[in-house]
Amino acid sequence: MAQTIQKALVLAGLSPEKARQCAMIHTETSCDGVYSHGLNRVPRFIDYIQQGWIHLEAEPSLEINLGAIEIYNGNLAPGVLNATFAMDRATAIAGQFGLGLVALNNTNHWMRGGTYGWQAVEKGFIGICWTNTESCMPSWGAMNNNIGNNPFVIAIPRKKGHVVLDMAMSLYSYGKLEVTRQKGQKLPFPGGFDQEGQLTDNPAAIELTRRILPTGYWKGSSLAIMLDLLAGILSKGKTTAAIDQFGKGNSVGLSQVFIAIDPLKMVDQAFIDQALSETIEQLRNSTSVEEAGEILYPGERSLRTRKENLQNGIPVDEKVWQNVRKLAGEL
Amino acid sequence: MAQTIQKALVLAGLSPEKARQCAMIHTETSCDGVYSHGLNRVPRFIDYIQQGWIHLEAEPSLEINLGAIEIYNGNLAPGVLNATFAMDRATAIAGQFGLGLVALNNTNHWMRGGTYGWQAVEKGFIGICWTNTESCMPSWGAMNNNIGNNPFVIAIPRKKGHVVLDMAMSLYSYGKLEVTRQKGQKLPFPGGFDQEGQLTDNPAAIELTRRILPTGYWKGSSLAIMLDLLAGILSKGKTTAAIDQFGKGNSVGLSQVFIAIDPLKMVDQAFIDQALSETIEQLRNSTSVEEAGEILYPGERSLRTRKENLQNGIPVDEKVWQNVRKLAGEL
Repeated sequence: MAQTIQKALVLAGLSPEKARQCAMIHTETSCDGVYSHGLNRVPRFIDYIQQGWIHLEAEPSLEINLGAIEIYNGNLAPGVLNATFAMDRATAIAGQFGLGLVALNNTNHWMRGGTYGWQAVEKGFIGICWTNTESCMPSWGAMNNNIGNNPFVIAIPRKKGHVVLDMAMSLYSYGKLEVTRQKGQKLPFPGGFDQEGQLTDNPAAIELTRRILPTGYWKGSSLAIMLDLLAGILSKGKTTAAIDQFGKGNSVGLSQVFIAIDPLKMVDQAFIDQALSETIEQLRNSTSVEEAGEILYPGERSLRTRKENLQNGIPVDEKVWQNVRKLAGEL
Repeated sequence: MAQTIQKALVLAGLSPEKARQCAMIHTETSCDGVYSHGLNRVPRFIDYIQQGWIHLEAEPSLEINLGAIEIYNGNLAPGVLNATFAMDRATAIAGQFGLGLVALNNTNHWMRGGTYGWQAVEKGFIGICWTNTESCMPSWGAMNNNIGNNPFVIAIPRKKGHVVLDMAMSLYSYGKLEVTRQKGQKLPFPGGFDQEGQLTDNPAAIELTRRILPTGYWKGSSLAIMLDLLAGILSKGKTTAAIDQFGKGNSVGLSQVFIAIDPLKMVDQAFIDQALSETIEQLRNSTSVEEAGEILYPGERSLRTRKENLQNGIPVDEKVWQNVRKLAGEL
C-alpha cells in the first residue's frame, strides 16, 4: 500500500522522499483502522495538490524562538510533513527543557491527528496537539456552520501499549455518517440536525444539512472555539473565521500546536507504569453495561486493529484501492 | 457575603488572612453565577475541615524545579489557596520564559476551576488548568463510577471581555440535577442512567444511581481519563484510582496542573484582539436556532451575571444563607 501511494504522490509532483513519508503516514493510518484519513484520503490530497493549495517543495521556516517555544510558518507545505517536523522539534525541545511547544501557522491538513501523538509516545514523550479547521460544524445555538471540529490529541507513553486519545469536537465524523448510511443503519445517538433543525440519528439527513452535532452539545462547541483561538494566537496564524475566507471552505492555511513533555524529567518509569496500570485496571475491573463487554482505554482499539491488520493485511474499499492504483499508474 | 464567609471560616479554624482569601473566592464564584461552588459550598468545605481532611496551616512545598516547570506538594492545604498559589507561580514563570507549568500533588478541591482561568487572564496571560477528582462518573460502557469529572479550564485574555471556558467532563453537574429536580423539570438532554441502565432526562432517577453521563458519551469519558493521567504524572501525584483509595470517596489528595502562557511574547495585542473579534463576530453573525436567540462566546454569560449581581446583589438560597450565617456566629 505504501509503495502504491508513494508512486501516486510522485506522479502528483512530490519528491520521492516526501512522497515516501506521506505514503507511510497514510498507510499507518489505514493500518490503525482510521481508513477515512489513510488510503481513502489520498485522492483528495492529490486533488488539493492539483488545485495548487499545497506547496510541494516548501519547508517550515522559523519565525519566533523563545527557548521552549518555537513558532514556524508552514509555508503551505504538505500538512503531514509540517506536522511531523513540528512534533519532532517539540520532542527535541522537551528533551532539553522538559517541555517543548511548537506552533505552526499557514499549514495544511495533517490527516489523522493521532499520528503525531503516536510519534511522541514512541519516543517516550507525552504528546499533546491540536489543529483548527475550516468551519464544518454549527456552534451551539447556531443554524449554520461557523466553527471547526478541531481535533485534539493527548498521548501518554506506556510500555504495555501507549494510551492515545484522538478526538474531534464533533460527535461523529462525516466518514462515520457515510459508513452508517451505506449500511442502512441509524447512528447510535443523534449526531446532527435535519432540515427542520431537529436532532436526528439519520445519517443521510445530516449529510444533507452538513450540520453535525458538537460533542456534548454546548461543551464540544465551546472547546472547539477555545482550541481554535489558542491555535491561532499561539502560532501567530489564522483562526477558523480567517481560514474560511482564505481557503474558501477548504482545509488550507491552518494553525496547529504541538506540545511534548518528557515525563522522565519529573517521575521515573515505575511511577508512570503504576499510575497507568492502576487506572487501566480500575477501568477493566468495572462492571460492563453489556454482558461480556469490555471497557477499553483510549488507544486500545487502534492498537488491536493495528495488530490484526499487520497480521492479515489492511482491508481496503476495492473502488478506492483501484482509484489509487490508477493514480499511481499501476492500472 | 465575603465578610460572613470569612467569619465562618475563622470559626472553623482558618487564619484571618487565609479565611479572607477563601471567602473572596467563594463570593466571586457566587457573583459569577456558579452558586453551587460559591456560597452553597461553604458548609461542605467546613465539614471537610472538621473531618480533618484539610490541613489549615499547611503551605505548598516545592518538590521539582525544571525552569519552566515546577512541581509542588500541596500538603493537603485548602485547595483554593494552593490553586491560587500555583496559577500565580505559573504566570510568574510565563512572564520569564513565555510558558509556565506548575503541577500540584496532594491538594484539595479547588471549588470553581474557572477561578484560576480568570486569575490568569486578569493578569494578561492565557491560562489552562485542570484537576482530577474522586470517581463520580462511569467511564463509557461501565455500570459503576470509576472516573472523575475532571474540570478543564481554558482562558484567553481580551480587553472587551475575557474568553473563559470552564467545563467538567460530565454533561451536567450534580448541582444542575438538583436544581432541575427542585423545579420539577426534565433535563434538556439525557444526562445519566436510571436503575435499569437506560439513559434518562429525569434528574431524580440519575441522583438515585449517581451515574451521570460523560459529555459526548465515549469522548468525554476518554478525555476525563487522559486529563486524570496527565494530572497524576505531571504532578507526581495521585490519579483517580489512587484518590478513591486515599480519600474514601471524597475530594482529597487531588492532582492539578496549571499552565500560563504570555501571548505578548508571540504576538501583539492588536493581533490577539483581531483574532478574538473575528471569531466572536462570526459566532454573533450566525443564524440562531431560536428566534431572537443569541449565540454567546465562552465566558460571556459569566461576565453578564457578574455585572448583574454586582449591581443588584448576589441572589442566595435563603436556607443556605441562614446556615452560613449560623456558621459565622451571626445568628
